[in-house]
Amino acid sequence: MRIGELSAQSGVPIPTIKYYVREGLLPAGERTKFNQAQYEATHLRRLKLVKALVEVGGLSIAATREVLTLMDAQTSDLARLGKAQYALTTRKEHEPDEAWEWADEQVGELLAKHGWQVSPRNPARLQLAEALATLHRLGQDDYLALLDRYADTAGRVATMDVDAVLARRNLDGMAEAIVIWTAIGDSVLISLRRLAQEAETVRRFGETVFAAEAEQQA
Amino acid sequence: MRIGELSAQSGVPIPTIKYYVREGLLPAGERTKFNQAQYEATHLRRLKLVKALVEVGGLSIAATREVLTLMDAQTSDLARLGKAQYALTTRKEHEPDEAWEWADEQVGELLAKHGWQVSPRNPARLQLAEALATLHRLGQDDYLALLDRYADTAGRVATMDVDAVLARRNLDGMAEAIVIWTAIGDSVLISLRRLAQEAETVRRFGETVFAAEAEQQA
Repeated sequence: MRIGELSAQSGVPIPTIKYYVREGLLPAGERTKFNQAQYEATHLRRLKLVKALVEVGGLSIAATREVLTLMDAQTSDLARLGKAQYALTTRKEHEPDEAWEWADEQVGELLAKHGWQVSPRNPARLQLAEALATLHRLGQDDYLALLDRYADTAGRVATMDVDAVLARRNLDGMAEAIVIWTAIGDSVLISLRRLAQEAETVRRFGETVFAAEAEQQA
Repeated sequence: MRIGELSAQSGVPIPTIKYYVREGLLPAGERTKFNQAQYEATHLRRLKLVKALVEVGGLSIAATREVLTLMDAQTSDLARLGKAQYALTTRKEHEPDEAWEWADEQVGELLAKHGWQVSPRNPARLQLAEALATLHRLGQDDYLALLDRYADTAGRVATMDVDAVLARRNLDGMAEAIVIWTAIGDSVLISLRRLAQEAETVRRFGETVFAAEAEQQA
């Protein structure tokens, strides 16, 4: 197919497709004798994945490139699965202030308490520490009382995730499941939490709290 | 304090502080007779909150403004709590294709099955539908088998969230808890999921999968 059809079938605008090709996220199409690029079904499949990781997963272009390279490695090296999972976590600079030092300690204690063996280099440690440091800076330490039970539910989710990945028959399928389900699964989990918050509130108090829109309609 | 000290104490660069003031996220400082702006402890507190919502919560400037306006409303109107919760969900245009129609139906069925009473206008419905549509477009429908149990765990988290918000003694405290814990809690939950995924993998298979970094060091 030509780039116009690739765009129509993927929902990605042509300039964005060209940008992804330049950034190495999508292989270039094959040049035909009329100097037009020709794209195959594999391009469409890859483009849909890039779109999903960037738009729904919220990954940066650099992170998407790293994840795809690890997915494509075609080796029997198990460690590429772990590297791909790490690449899905957004890394940010943190402020090395007192709040951060304190939060980092909390993370260490949480992992020890739950018996979670996790490499000091898992970037999610930094992400969790930064979130806890933020709550601390905002004087919201009472949230910490929830942390253990949050960790329990995250553990349940992770067990399902690992089971589901193992149901894939080969390493490439597993790599694909890790990448897609981790990235898109975040969005699933977050939106379910929002919906359940409303449902739980309505269950206890009726529709008062979430009556906003109905009221606007009236 | 002057803007330099506000910047030092919050970790927010001066140009960013000025931008937040222009965008209405932070009240302007009071002009002194030397034509310098003077900031108070309340400015610092508000600035830390803006930073948290934007940098950790990932909210847009417009969403942050909406959330803060609802937090500041100082009315006894309970519906502002629900409006604030809705404002925390990122709204995106969705492609109204076959995958989306299908996903939207799945969301309706899920809510019915779990007995969750949720307004058709909760933006998290669209977010969940978009995530499911994305999985469908990528041929990852086997993920749906996890959806029910994901919803159960999200329900547990939401019950804790609602309990924690109700522990606040007044409406303003509740509004603050809803905003901060929902936005930062997403990051807590997501990072805990990543950590638990590694812990669960190590528990079953040892460190092979997550040996990547140790290997690079050797």
